[in-house]
Amino acid sequence: MPKAVFHYFPVKALGEPIRLLLSYGGQEFEDDRVPFDKWPEFKSKTPFGQMPVLELNGKVYAQSVAISRYLGRKYGLAGADIEEDFLIDQYVDFVNDIRTHAAAAFYEPDAALKAKKHEENVKNVYPVLLGKLEEIIRRNNGHLVSGKLTWGDFVAAGMFDHFKMMMQAPDLDTKYPNFKRLQETVLSLPRVKEYVAAAQ
Amino acid sequence: MPKAVFHYFPVKALGEPIRLLLSYGGQEFEDDRVPFDKWPEFKSKTPFGQMPVLELNGKVYAQSVAISRYLGRKYGLAGADIEEDFLIDQYVDFVNDIRTHAAAAFYEPDAALKAKKHEENVKNVYPVLLGKLEEIIRRNNGHLVSGKLTWGDFVAAGMFDHFKMMMQAPDLDTKYPNFKRLQETVLSLPRVKEYVAAAQ
Repeated sequence: MPKAVFHYFPVKALGEPIRLLLSYGGQEFEDDRVPFDKWPEFKSKTPFGQMPVLELNGKVYAQSVAISRYLGRKYGLAGADIEEDFLIDQYVDFVNDIRTHAAAAFYEPDAALKAKKHEENVKNVYPVLLGKLEEIIRRNNGHLVSGKLTWGDFVAAGMFDHFKMMMQAPDLDTKYPNFKRLQETVLSLPRVKEYVAAAQ
Repeated sequence: MPKAVFHYFPVKALGEPIRLLLSYGGQEFEDDRVPFDKWPEFKSKTPFGQMPVLELNGKVYAQSVAISRYLGRKYGLAGADIEEDFLIDQYVDFVNDIRTHAAAAFYEPDAALKAKKHEENVKNVYPVLLGKLEEIIRRNNGHLVSGKLTWGDFVAAGMFDHFKMMMQAPDLDTKYPNFKRLQETVLSLPRVKEYVAAAQ
């Protein structure tokens, strides 16, 4: 199997769903964790001045969700038809909406504004959006769509720890047990489990 | 053909690509332009507290890009294989990255901060990102991918006027002629042309 190279910062964030998917697909890959101080130099070599970037079979792939969808289809993790594919896409975009809210507070440089955004999120945003996500996963028997494993689950699972960190919410596990269970389901898949153990 | 209802604010923004796609597909639809003062009341009836929302064949579809991809596949506007589909997804996500930068300045409520964000975008963000987009479209002979019409073109075309407005850039047409040409190509498609004429 041709070797792949995956470039991302040395954090989970937008990179983890792709690392989990590559592991699931049995794709050997170099996990190139670009240090923050090397990023300015590497930036201009990427298609959009962003990471993650995946090199695979001589091609370069950018945009995290687009890469996840592509690998998901490659590894048999897409929906059965365009209706199921739509549901995966819809819920993945919703998970990313939640991420955007959390990131707006987490990466805010002004300390007072950061505190204000965080407080607003904790009070009015996270309970509503995470409540909806929890209910979606509960209704789909531990998955995002149709009670079965899809690439959407890898996106949600890969985001769990990132959400916990950005939201300053160590109680995410107990407050949203179905979301936590989805993460555990994905991280327990044989080849994914090996990757997670090796990456510790 | 069953009637569809499309709910969005009375603006182009995230709704226009979907209106253009529905028109292209010959899908009769009620263009429900929800006034801003009616939104708080309608919000709780939507799947994620957001618009756009499309009602079609008794189902409810949310998330703008997911809807565009779904309609694109329905109307024969997807890629020929997963590689082309990936490219469409990648470039659509890139177009949305540009939108996110513009929206962060445009919707900033603090006047001083808004001016600062706009200035930074005009100086360092728009030239780089729109330059890349222009080059992608030039290289693909007036389209986003493979020199042919795909649903990605509808997303880019539907965003053109929204970008112009948010970026306060009346010169977008002359600065990025390939992007403008892509918009004209989509808006000139027979059924799309009818919709645009009727929506004026």
